[in-house]
Amino acid sequence: MDKEIKKKLASNWFKLLQNTICNDIEKLEGKKSKFKSKTWNRSEIKDEGGGEFRILKNGKIFEKVGVNFSEVHGKFSKKMSKKIPGASKNPNFWASGISIVMHMKNPHVPAIHFNTRFIYTTHGWFGGGMDVTPCIQDLKEKSFLHTELKKMCDRHDKKFYKKYKKWCDEYFYLPHRKETRGIGGIFFDYKKKDWEKDFKFVTDLGVTFQMLFNSIIQLKHKKKWTVKQKEIQYIKRGRYAEFNLLYDRGTKFGLQTGGNVEAILMSLPPIAKWN
Amino acid sequence: MDKEIKKKLASNWFKLLQNTICNDIEKLEGKKSKFKSKTWNRSEIKDEGGGEFRILKNGKIFEKVGVNFSEVHGKFSKKMSKKIPGASKNPNFWASGISIVMHMKNPHVPAIHFNTRFIYTTHGWFGGGMDVTPCIQDLKEKSFLHTELKKMCDRHDKKFYKKYKKWCDEYFYLPHRKETRGIGGIFFDYKKKDWEKDFKFVTDLGVTFQMLFNSIIQLKHKKKWTVKQKEIQYIKRGRYAEFNLLYDRGTKFGLQTGGNVEAILMSLPPIAKWN
Repeated sequence: MDKEIKKKLASNWFKLLQNTICNDIEKLEGKKSKFKSKTWNRSEIKDEGGGEFRILKNGKIFEKVGVNFSEVHGKFSKKMSKKIPGASKNPNFWASGISIVMHMKNPHVPAIHFNTRFIYTTHGWFGGGMDVTPCIQDLKEKSFLHTELKKMCDRHDKKFYKKYKKWCDEYFYLPHRKETRGIGGIFFDYKKKDWEKDFKFVTDLGVTFQMLFNSIIQLKHKKKWTVKQKEIQYIKRGRYAEFNLLYDRGTKFGLQTGGNVEAILMSLPPIAKWN
Repeated sequence: MDKEIKKKLASNWFKLLQNTICNDIEKLEGKKSKFKSKTWNRSEIKDEGGGEFRILKNGKIFEKVGVNFSEVHGKFSKKMSKKIPGASKNPNFWASGISIVMHMKNPHVPAIHFNTRFIYTTHGWFGGGMDVTPCIQDLKEKSFLHTELKKMCDRHDKKFYKKYKKWCDEYFYLPHRKETRGIGGIFFDYKKKDWEKDFKFVTDLGVTFQMLFNSIIQLKHKKKWTVKQKEIQYIKRGRYAEFNLLYDRGTKFGLQTGGNVEAILMSLPPIAKWN
């Protein structure tokens, strides 16, 4: 398949998913809370694409949720070119993706993160994943999440779940705290074996994420919580901010390549506390 | 002067300053709020020194203030040795310092940071500085701070203030936000020209910091503030956390060399918000 068609199909999917998920979230919220949307351009001088991020704050379910779509192209700096596969000889790149972080009002409902992207340098690959960060343990929820992710992975390749779960556990880890960010999920990168199969996997993950966040939220968003539990959530969010600012590659990649700061740091929690 | 005497004099000074400043803070707080102290060891197996950090929370003036003293020695990892002056051939090091971050209850009173340290590898040097981060502009305060710091610097060398002020402005800068952390102060490192003169400068900075924080606090801690101003403070603290986790060399140095995580991350604000 022509690479331009691949790019188009991938970015169209990410855009469609942004709309679908924002619709779901607004439905969950009822009529009162709506997304605010903002578009941005990578360059002020020439056309290097850009993105649209949508944010909803102080909802009855979502304390803060950001849904980012972007489609950019340009040249990597020399420093970046060395780090990115396929870019050392030719610094031109194209990238599109969707990234979502949900910070919930009810401390019983975990924070949920999802992102998928397609990057093209001299070759193209998919990356992404989803992971869940509760602040109050719930073994049933953990088991539900991993069972559903395993089912989804198994539809594509029986080896995926084990590999991508491990990747996720290793990635979302705070070495200085010697603790994981949450209860994991799946994470993958440099996925480039068979474009059509890879794309199917990526779309399936998007749909599975949609089912998962709806199910997790529906089950618990009305559960009563205490001030003490809310405090535990604030402290856990401090850890979330630590991870994203100290270690997250996406955050660093975005800030180093001149991405939109508001969009990149939308992943940060609305309120965090440190003891 | 023998290097062991230099180390002893420097660490004794930092320890003395920790006591003096904690006394000042408890006096400002009145009888209700007291410091909690915690000691830690760098190694559980052998003697590699350690430190004592003291923290006071929810005071009438200080929302959170940490006063860290440490005196450690050991071997740098290969990776660290390459980055630290004088350590590439011999990885042995000794370091002692004091580090203070004050997060205030009243949003009219700025956050204040101070630290001084003496590091010895194959040679020894001083580093440190102090800087001030208001969330509500006060040009009088800014002028007072810089006038006093200039006076102090001028007592030692007429060239110091300009040089160290610039160093501070460049260091405490958030490139992704294109903004400074606060209104600056002074910052210096690799100070090793004349040990006795350098030590006098470092002790003078400690005493000047003591005078400055007392003056700044006395003047404004009873000033009335609004909920809106408190919100502005929370957002500014989000920037503070961004700086410390994304860029601060001390934080990265500490986390990479196995320092005490609680002590290192004591600099983080008690509550931060992101829009």
